[in-house]
Amino acid sequence: MQVEVITIGDELLLGYTVDSNSAHIGRALAAVGVRVVRRTTVGDDPDDIVSALRAAMERTGAVITTGGLGPTADDRTHESIALALGVPLVLREDALATLRERWQGRTGRPMPESNVRQCMVPDGSTLLDNTHGSAPGVWCETAAGAWVATLPGVPREMRGMLTDVLLPRVRDRLARTGTEETLPVVRARTVRTTGIAESALADHLAEFKRAVHDVPLAYLPGVEGVDLRLTVSGVPSDVADGMLDRAERVLLERVGDWIYGHDDEDLAAVVLRALKAHSHTIAVAESCTGGLLGARLTAIPGSSHSVVGGVIAYDNRVKESLLGVSASLLDAHGAVSEAVARAMAAGVRARLGADVGVGITGVAGPSGGSDEKPVGTVWIAIDSVTGSQAVKPVFPGDRADIRARAAQMALDLVRRSYRVP
Amino acid sequence: MQVEVITIGDELLLGYTVDSNSAHIGRALAAVGVRVVRRTTVGDDPDDIVSALRAAMERTGAVITTGGLGPTADDRTHESIALALGVPLVLREDALATLRERWQGRTGRPMPESNVRQCMVPDGSTLLDNTHGSAPGVWCETAAGAWVATLPGVPREMRGMLTDVLLPRVRDRLARTGTEETLPVVRARTVRTTGIAESALADHLAEFKRAVHDVPLAYLPGVEGVDLRLTVSGVPSDVADGMLDRAERVLLERVGDWIYGHDDEDLAAVVLRALKAHSHTIAVAESCTGGLLGARLTAIPGSSHSVVGGVIAYDNRVKESLLGVSASLLDAHGAVSEAVARAMAAGVRARLGADVGVGITGVAGPSGGSDEKPVGTVWIAIDSVTGSQAVKPVFPGDRADIRARAAQMALDLVRRSYRVP
Repeated sequence: MQVEVITIGDELLLGYTVDSNSAHIGRALAAVGVRVVRRTTVGDDPDDIVSALRAAMERTGAVITTGGLGPTADDRTHESIALALGVPLVLREDALATLRERWQGRTGRPMPESNVRQCMVPDGSTLLDNTHGSAPGVWCETAAGAWVATLPGVPREMRGMLTDVLLPRVRDRLARTGTEETLPVVRARTVRTTGIAESALADHLAEFKRAVHDVPLAYLPGVEGVDLRLTVSGVPSDVADGMLDRAERVLLERVGDWIYGHDDEDLAAVVLRALKAHSHTIAVAESCTGGLLGARLTAIPGSSHSVVGGVIAYDNRVKESLLGVSASLLDAHGAVSEAVARAMAAGVRARLGADVGVGITGVAGPSGGSDEKPVGTVWIAIDSVTGSQAVKPVFPGDRADIRARAAQMALDLVRRSYRVP
Repeated sequence: MQVEVITIGDELLLGYTVDSNSAHIGRALAAVGVRVVRRTTVGDDPDDIVSALRAAMERTGAVITTGGLGPTADDRTHESIALALGVPLVLREDALATLRERWQGRTGRPMPESNVRQCMVPDGSTLLDNTHGSAPGVWCETAAGAWVATLPGVPREMRGMLTDVLLPRVRDRLARTGTEETLPVVRARTVRTTGIAESALADHLAEFKRAVHDVPLAYLPGVEGVDLRLTVSGVPSDVADGMLDRAERVLLERVGDWIYGHDDEDLAAVVLRALKAHSHTIAVAESCTGGLLGARLTAIPGSSHSVVGGVIAYDNRVKESLLGVSASLLDAHGAVSEAVARAMAAGVRARLGADVGVGITGVAGPSGGSDEKPVGTVWIAIDSVTGSQAVKPVFPGDRADIRARAAQMALDLVRRSYRVP
């Protein structure tokens, strides 16, 4: 099955919004053996939407749109589909009742009347429930069996509806066309590393160049580390999985020391699993990261099992009053120093009664650097029953990069102290 | 002038690469008065590239491509353009000599022969020098005056060539068509709101529908609020600015109460400016946001002027020990309550010696909700010399949304207490 994607919105063409939805849809469809063969972006003008729809319906007869389902006058996707397919636009009272009820339940107020138009859909279409937002999508099918499905443009809503509602429909359609058994898939696996540069990884993997045995390998560097992506295509799924397993074993042998997880796995979740397995708790003391490490940890559902809390010790007086770092230590070594990072980690651990304490203090910039402690200099310490340790990376990048890298390295120090995975 | 963009590459359709080039091109062209009216993404197959090229040449006759200029067998953009325009593909010896020389200079080694094909271009085209990488682009013009220009897919190279080589050509072409003196521009202004739903905004602005007077208006909702984007095109820049000013005044009159800034402005930066103007300091006490509010504030350079620090009071014991929230208050009202939020705000303000204290406690989910306090229920309090106040929003969305919305609303409460902007 070949699918086309049409993304709709003036803001996409003007470049105010980067279209991340398309990539997500491409990956999700590839994982079930469906290939996106063309993507078209048009503005909010119904003429443009209709012309793109007609051409795509003619080429592949399988179209997914994103955007233009909102309550305002420039949201015109459903009306354009009705035009393109030559069917009337009708008000779906059932959708409206659901929408009114949800709105009232969530906000305690009646639904504004402008939302009514979100329930105007092409006649004869099937509603696709949007449990993540207000606008329902539709699945419209022609007599000849061609179809177009609509998803909202807000990424969270789009992803939820794609997974919950649209992908099951697409799979069902594949099954009915009898191609499911031997479907050649595109399957990818990402192996996540941190604490090592892309070029150093490439040196460790020098003999493999662009592929590990037969599996193409891509390096994807980011502030949280370098992801290694393995991709297999054109073979049945069990063969693909076997090839990926073999390639991953090679990566584990060569660079396993820096690998912390797979795919979208978050290092914070890996650390929380290790803490939970040991029934340990953690507390954080943050200066230059200002709450970022705490936010990373508590972003993970269930983190309250292990996270006691922390102190954002931005001002030195807070380092003294809430963490017990002595004024003389601060005077003697400066706030960005090994001694202060260790004292912060030990202080937050003791005062909050946690098993592990983390201390971070550094120069995130853009100002505040010196020859001795340039912007990017960060001291990170952890303190636990097995002792205390500290590292002093000097991170590249801007303020946001330096803070993100510092939080990631702090998490990695904790991970390594538990020797996971 | 209207332009179409064609982005080329299997990795875009498969979703392994998010296409950020298109947004960059859209913004860069809009700034000189050229509008991108359609974007098409195709894979590496020459048939698909040719079909997309032909359709775009027919519609607008002004096309920019990205991608497919590399040295490997799947880089086929120039050969496809030759096919689409019906001209031969020729080896440009001058480009090859330049490429060999640069390669040798940069790497100290002779150029691999696989790079030769990067110098095969459609006959009659003008070379566009790529000083940021190896592949040259081309500008091909038909007898009828239609044109297609090629840029590489690597974002850094694409941006360099667009600025250095292609934009001057496009401006030159605009000038030759006699429009430069009063060059019509596309100018946009974003007015940022928070604390009000998209549909409620639309109700307040009901009489304007898609435009405020002559200025098209777009609603862009996100977790931090709804951005209102005003766009003017096709008029000289001073006229555009006047139109935007008039439209913005209307927005200020109608929905000014929810407006906090412009364009990319961060509410945290707005709050920090207000604090600095009053020589006030701030401290935060965070339960369900776990450091996110502190991270938002300290992400802004220079925040140390006003941010004292904070307490991540995830566990109730931390609310007691570091913030002085009494156990009896926690028992009587529960952690997610007005009384506890106010006590957290007052506690962090007093203990850290700040002028303003913020307290946040809520149910971020996915578990922990009840009939009385469903997931999304958050109490936010601020405490300052002018008194204390608290609000209880019930936010939609997942854990990440709820936390992000809570941090944003806490910032907005502080902003409102200073009546800014």
